[in-house]
Amino acid sequence: MTEAQKARLAMRAGEWRGPTLFQVPGYVQANLVVLPKTDAYDFLVYCQRNPRPCPLIDVTDPGDPEPRLSAPGADLRTDLPRYAVYRNGVRCEDAHDIRDLWQDDSVGFLLGSSMTFDDALERAGVPKSKEVWVLDTHLQTVPSGKFRGPMVVTMRWMTPAQAVIACQLTGRFPFNHGAPIHLGDPAAIGVDLRRPLYGEPVQEIPEGVTPVFWACGVTPQRIALLTRPDLMITHAPGHAFVTDIKADQFCIP
Amino acid sequence: MTEAQKARLAMRAGEWRGPTLFQVPGYVQANLVVLPKTDAYDFLVYCQRNPRPCPLIDVTDPGDPEPRLSAPGADLRTDLPRYAVYRNGVRCEDAHDIRDLWQDDSVGFLLGSSMTFDDALERAGVPKSKEVWVLDTHLQTVPSGKFRGPMVVTMRWMTPAQAVIACQLTGRFPFNHGAPIHLGDPAAIGVDLRRPLYGEPVQEIPEGVTPVFWACGVTPQRIALLTRPDLMITHAPGHAFVTDIKADQFCIP
Repeated sequence: MTEAQKARLAMRAGEWRGPTLFQVPGYVQANLVVLPKTDAYDFLVYCQRNPRPCPLIDVTDPGDPEPRLSAPGADLRTDLPRYAVYRNGVRCEDAHDIRDLWQDDSVGFLLGSSMTFDDALERAGVPKSKEVWVLDTHLQTVPSGKFRGPMVVTMRWMTPAQAVIACQLTGRFPFNHGAPIHLGDPAAIGVDLRRPLYGEPVQEIPEGVTPVFWACGVTPQRIALLTRPDLMITHAPGHAFVTDIKADQFCIP
Repeated sequence: MTEAQKARLAMRAGEWRGPTLFQVPGYVQANLVVLPKTDAYDFLVYCQRNPRPCPLIDVTDPGDPEPRLSAPGADLRTDLPRYAVYRNGVRCEDAHDIRDLWQDDSVGFLLGSSMTFDDALERAGVPKSKEVWVLDTHLQTVPSGKFRGPMVVTMRWMTPAQAVIACQLTGRFPFNHGAPIHLGDPAAIGVDLRRPLYGEPVQEIPEGVTPVFWACGVTPQRIALLTRPDLMITHAPGHAFVTDIKADQFCIP
């Protein structure tokens, strides 16, 4: 049994309810979005039009909770450590199991997460950031139907030399947000470091480091706040789905 | 006006009805598939599950013939040199204009074409193949709804040194089929060189060269033969849509 399978079984058994950040290194982690079939077409087109924040790794058949391409045998209703439930665009309860909420027409979307390349960066000589911030921007995504709104980004501190390595290396992971979308001045993309969505507020950028920004899979969650689908389920931030795909593989499938 | 825009206007005016292979270098060329909205969801998922043969560059809104991301102002009904019309999975008439066939619920899909990287290969020291063959394989694609069937590939002859360059270089074009899916023995992927779909039949592989194979955007056309949609329109083989996207750009959009 692989480390990815072991992790998922521990989550299914309720023994693992914490974050997946920096856990199960070497395996592609994915953000989860569950929508009814009626919303799925527009969302698919939205992902196609915005591959940087929404790189699709797997789309399940309606009603089928098994991600057959990325983790055969897994169950998207039980195999994540923590879920966030949105009703009419408002985040309501969190859950550790969504079997009660899964419908006959539920479609599960798995989107590559930037958590995936943190391990590859470390092997390339770029130490893990102590913190990974998640921030709103003023960059608009390309709309599809009712799905529209600004892009969310992750931010890491790096020295300029590390940033150069990161541009080369993460470009090789197109299914995990790819290369940075910005580096340097946060204000240029409308980022306010004092108001992160996740992470500690930052008053000042430390000397000698450059903020480096990647498109973030939290974007569709923010979009949900604006488009108010009746029911939308996602992973809880930082609590991603661990696939069987090796992060160093160049193509999926 | 760019060379891409000039080319499309010449096609719209009926002055350009020939192939686009090796024409308008530097611009991403795309395969076209037009389907009714009712088939579009399964086809979108099919493309997501098979990104090597079906790398989606642009999906139009239902009824709208303008590819807003890849060629704003263009018209998919008139701006290709030649179209192939399939009825119930059978290739019927060819056309130079599909305004009469375009419906209120028509959706245009543009899929990156391997023609795009031929120019980049030449700049990297790999001369253009005199011929590019299109061939059936026994590799099965991942199904979605009624869309299922074997993958079609393109084949180019290269020296081993050129093949090494090609693997590195085309991997940088994930929206144009990316790296090769195979090199060497054609039989290993079920290819019969004596029976190409396009190109002259080959009796013997010349000495000193290796066949190199890429997933091909003709795959969805072959799938149409098997799944028999009422009406499906594609570009005629070799007569692709010329987008405004520069082939050397790393990301779309």
